[in-house]
Amino acid sequence: MDISQVKGTVVATRKDPKLSGHKMLLVELADIAGKSRGGTPMVALDTIDAGIGDLVLLVRGSSARQAMNMSATPVDAIIIGIIDNIECDGDLTYTTST
Amino acid sequence: MDISQVKGTVVATRKDPKLSGHKMLLVELADIAGKSRGGTPMVALDTIDAGIGDLVLLVRGSSARQAMNMSATPVDAIIIGIIDNIECDGDLTYTTST
Amino acid sequence: MDISQVKGTVVATRKDPKLSGHKMLLVELADIAGKSRGGTPMVALDTIDAGIGDLVLLVRGSSARQAMNMSATPVDAIIIGIIDNIECDGDLTYTTST
Amino acid sequence: MDISQVKGTVVATRKDPKLSGHKMLLVELADIAGKSRGGTPMVALDTIDAGIGDLVLLVRGSSARQAMNMSATPVDAIIIGIIDNIECDGDLTYTTST
Amino acid sequence: MDISQVKGTVVATRKDPKLSGHKMLLVELADIAGKSRGGTPMVALDTIDAGIGDLVLLVRGSSARQAMNMSATPVDAIIIGIIDNIECDGDLTYTTST
Repeated sequence: MDISQVKGTVVATRKDPKLSGHKMLLVELADIAGKSRGGTPMVALDTIDAGIGDLVLLVRGSSARQAMNMSATPVDAIIIGIIDNIECDGDLTYTTST
Repeated sequence: MDISQVKGTVVATRKDPKLSGHKMLLVELADIAGKSRGGTPMVALDTIDAGIGDLVLLVRGSSARQAMNMSATPVDAIIIGIIDNIECDGDLTYTTST
Repeated sequence: MDISQVKGTVVATRKDPKLSGHKMLLVELADIAGKSRGGTPMVALDTIDAGIGDLVLLVRGSSARQAMNMSATPVDAIIIGIIDNIECDGDLTYTTST
Repeated sequence: MDISQVKGTVVATRKDPKLSGHKMLLVELADIAGKSRGGTPMVALDTIDAGIGDLVLLVRGSSARQAMNMSATPVDAIIIGIIDNIECDGDLTYTTST
Repeated sequence: MDISQVKGTVVATRKDPKLSGHKMLLVELADIAGKSRGGTPMVALDTIDAGIGDLVLLVRGSSARQAMNMSATPVDAIIIGIIDNIECDGDLTYTTST
């Protein structure tokens, strides 16, 4: 899974019917401190009610369809968790606690 | 999913029989403002009647086969939605409304 | 799917038995004019009797196994169509007609 | 599979229920000597009780779901082995024995 | 499939039980002349008894599990053939015959 940050939303009225009712978010790959890695944002479906600014776990490829209620959905990127803490080499590089 | 723009069409008379009847479009990866990201265009099947110039959502890999009527089709890229609006960091970066 | 050109052939006598009887071709990624994109060629199975020099459609990943007679074959790249015409931004960038 | 090194841990309280009970580790791609390849770390689930600093084998994509107890889990990266030795061109480039 | 060369071996005593009994080889991507393309080697399972130095065909992703006895194995890279000849643009660029 990749560390990503929720940056915004995408609206598509005309779409595959299986996408209806799923929130589409704009996400950007991030590093272990939660900073942007600079690539072009992609579009992911959200199953855990993530919000703008959240650092999240992104699953890609066919495994995305194993998330809740996604088994028959044409989706290749899903947000499956909101990150609380990242620890690397013994340092806390990201935390939502203050 | 990736933001892409429909650039043209591809015609192949000799092809896998399961591709017959599906429109093949040339698509190019785009950024959150709908501008080209400069890569080589790829070929995607269209299930939602997208047109040249539309900004669309592209699903790739095995998940593409979850789109309407595609379950047994040898396809790794499908257009699954036409984008109306993209909002990033609180700004409307793309819209079809004027 | 990616636009590719057939460049040659690959012979492997010792191989997985499910590959027997399938022609293995060397293919190179190409642009919308049919010119090489310069990467290292890869090996694809052929289901539509493509020939050297043909511009073809290449499906990759698990979707390759949806092509004719490939469902249980260990293959991640298949030629599924021979391209006749590519039109981009209103221009005919590639055609087999003269 | 890719050679990777376990660098740390990731905690996510709010997540897909199928991820509960699985340890989430931060892993970084490594070379045949066990040195970092310099990319951004990713997040992998652990099925074999790997520890910080271990050089491990990482499976990605849908094949990750073939690991123990992962068949219905939304996961695209799994640690499936702890590397003891790597030998390349006749040289032992990495070993855990001293 | 990608052209690769077998460079060495990897040993992992603690691993997913479904990997037991499969030989793990270190492979490096190669060009059509059989020369290294310079990337970091990866780890592949071997189903055809390939040896060090052999130029082989590598299948990646979920299709790797279609190789002999691999259907339930957590593996994303398999050696499925040993290359005898590569012909490109009418030239024999690689051969095992002398």
